Amino acid sequence: MAKRKVYLDNSATTYTRPEVVEAMLPYYTNIYGNASSVHSFGQDAKNALTEARKKFAQLINAESSDEIIFTSCGTESDNMAIIGLLEATNGKHIITSQLEHHAVLHTCKYLETCGYKVDYIPVDSSGIIKLDVLKEKITDDTTIISIMHANNEIGVIEPIEEISKIIKELNSTRKNQIFFHTDAVQTAGKIKLDVQKLGIDLLSVSAHKFYGPKGVGALYVKQGTKISPILHGGHHENGLKPGTENIAGIVGMTKALELANNEIESENKKCSMLREKLKTGILNLIPKSIINTDFSNSVSSILNVSFESVEGESLLLMLDMQGIAVSTGSACASGSTEPSYVLKSIGLDPVTAQGTIRFSLGRQNTHEDIAYVLEVLPKIVEKVRQMSPVWNKR
Amino acid sequence: MAKRKVYLDNSATTYTRPEVVEAMLPYYTNIYGNASSVHSFGQDAKNALTEARKKFAQLINAESSDEIIFTSCGTESDNMAIIGLLEATNGKHIITSQLEHHAVLHTCKYLETCGYKVDYIPVDSSGIIKLDVLKEKITDDTTIISIMHANNEIGVIEPIEEISKIIKELNSTRKNQIFFHTDAVQTAGKIKLDVQKLGIDLLSVSAHKFYGPKGVGALYVKQGTKISPILHGGHHENGLKPGTENIAGIVGMTKALELANNEIESENKKCSMLREKLKTGILNLIPKSIINTDFSNSVSSILNVSFESVEGESLLLMLDMQGIAVSTGSACASGSTEPSYVLKSIGLDPVTAQGTIRFSLGRQNTHEDIAYVLEVLPKIVEKVRQMSPVWNKR
Repeated sequence: MAKRKVYLDNSATTYTRPEVVEAMLPYYTNIYGNASSVHSFGQDAKNALTEARKKFAQLINAESSDEIIFTSCGTESDNMAIIGLLEATNGKHIITSQLEHHAVLHTCKYLETCGYKVDYIPVDSSGIIKLDVLKEKITDDTTIISIMHANNEIGVIEPIEEISKIIKELNSTRKNQIFFHTDAVQTAGKIKLDVQKLGIDLLSVSAHKFYGPKGVGALYVKQGTKISPILHGGHHENGLKPGTENIAGIVGMTKALELANNEIESENKKCSMLREKLKTGILNLIPKSIINTDFSNSVSSILNVSFESVEGESLLLMLDMQGIAVSTGSACASGSTEPSYVLKSIGLDPVTAQGTIRFSLGRQNTHEDIAYVLEVLPKIVEKVRQMSPVWNKR
Repeated sequence: MAKRKVYLDNSATTYTRPEVVEAMLPYYTNIYGNASSVHSFGQDAKNALTEARKKFAQLINAESSDEIIFTSCGTESDNMAIIGLLEATNGKHIITSQLEHHAVLHTCKYLETCGYKVDYIPVDSSGIIKLDVLKEKITDDTTIISIMHANNEIGVIEPIEEISKIIKELNSTRKNQIFFHTDAVQTAGKIKLDVQKLGIDLLSVSAHKFYGPKGVGALYVKQGTKISPILHGGHHENGLKPGTENIAGIVGMTKALELANNEIESENKKCSMLREKLKTGILNLIPKSIINTDFSNSVSSILNVSFESVEGESLLLMLDMQGIAVSTGSACASGSTEPSYVLKSIGLDPVTAQGTIRFSLGRQNTHEDIAYVLEVLPKIVEKVRQMSPVWNKR
């Protein structure tokens, strides 16, 4: 039995906060109507939905609650943003980055098979998109640029406002508007989202990354942005997302974002402190460790580290036996034996990339958790290295 | 204030059973890992998912749990079944019926704009699909036939096994297999689903129609049925439905179906009794009432009635003021002033169709509820008719 359970995989998913569960409960058994129904049961549900939408819009500084489409997850939001926009605008060309989440990358790969042109912009060694290449790739056909707000593996924050400025300038003289989408799944609840300040047209979030329930997300669609539904059915969510609204989930997500926004400064301060402690401990205690996260420009929750001559997967399993949960990359890509494309994009060689783990901190983590990791991890790395022919040959 | 609250709109949505909520709760705060994560938090979630999938497969008599894809709603299931199959098989021709739910009809309408050919088979006066027309419409290009199990407005049960037999016979000599999809959203939990006995390849359900939570559904995909994902991202659900699995929702849905299946006979008996009482009462107390539901072939929960010289919408609103929740048709189509296409398809003239309401019974309804409706409804119909110039001219 492990001495302690330490969950350091909060970028994969978080627990749902008890306050959030409590906010959701009435919508299972009491206020259970279909928000599309005309009678009072339906109207009570609709009122809850309207309130949640209004609140959610405020929380990300949208101009109007009409700009919020509730979805079933971040992946659906990303798909809807890109496919829905291209379909509505007869778009042809997409620009994205090499380190997007699979929800964007695989959507783009799919669209390539449908005849759309996609450019995948490279990033520098800290993971920041190369703006000069981005600018070069923009053509008259460019319809959408999709660049994530922060990366899920290394935590780097992309220069969204800068990209938005570039696009706005071009749009002022172009015939075909370029629309700007950002996947903010890793920043919602960690950075106070302000869609107007960011200057974006479309923004995706997912509740279960900020202590909300799984199975619910949102897409911000700026007024005037044409978008088609990608699922077909009833006229829910302004005709954009059919299916009976998941009121409990929507109320839960909104509550979770409200709580997270209220605590954003104190939580970031705590996370930064814990992350610094973890990093310093690792660098002091474990030789040949490489920090892949740029501390000057990343969400405070993520620390990505490579250990020379170690398999990340072995490390993960041995840490797990000691009660510590980390990941080798994105949970969505787990099970894959390929080295992370994100680490490859920042220039890590495949061998180093394979020796990498991601710690992602959350609100439940304590100094004691980090102390425990720093007690356990060096021994594990040492043990794995002792078994490694490469390490012993050094 | 109404003397009593009577919810008779259980086909629009149901409350979530407290036992179901209880089954879901651990997956918010305790077993909250991402089922794709390798560590114990993830594996605990994955175990819950695997168990739910196995149980769910048993509940609908699937051969293997691999045949179950968990989705975010019935609409997504329907879209995935039809679009996903056509994409994977390079299909060309779809056959469906005129009284499908919008999730199927609007998907087909969308596919027509993409160049697919769709035939919408008419139904007889009780809503049963015309099998001779269906047979005539099948061509070498036919890839999918999608016929609902029971209709959401009038409750009619379609001859799924018979259609399946026709298809099987044709498939035995055809080069291009015809696949058979049924939207079982209105029958799951009301008729014991047996996918093998029904002889279908694809079947959609939605949890919130059988006392499960909103925001979760399932698609049964028979082994050997090729299907492509319609959303793009991670490799969840056998590569068919990306996005972190909503474990709480999936566990809740499975629990709800298990409970419903266990009680199916007693509930149907009770519903049939209440429906009979409601029908007899209406026919005795309200002149010029027309029963649109075929009692010999329908789910026991639905009673669709037209009242001459009455606007269904007025009736709905006045019943609501007395605490009684009914609908004029599908909740998804509410707000529309068009007469129901389902009622039109069974031959009702537009005026009669406009004077229609649907009662849909559920497990919480009692004899007292029906007695209350029979106390209130005749007076309301009388009142509305008194204000009607048409009625007074008679």
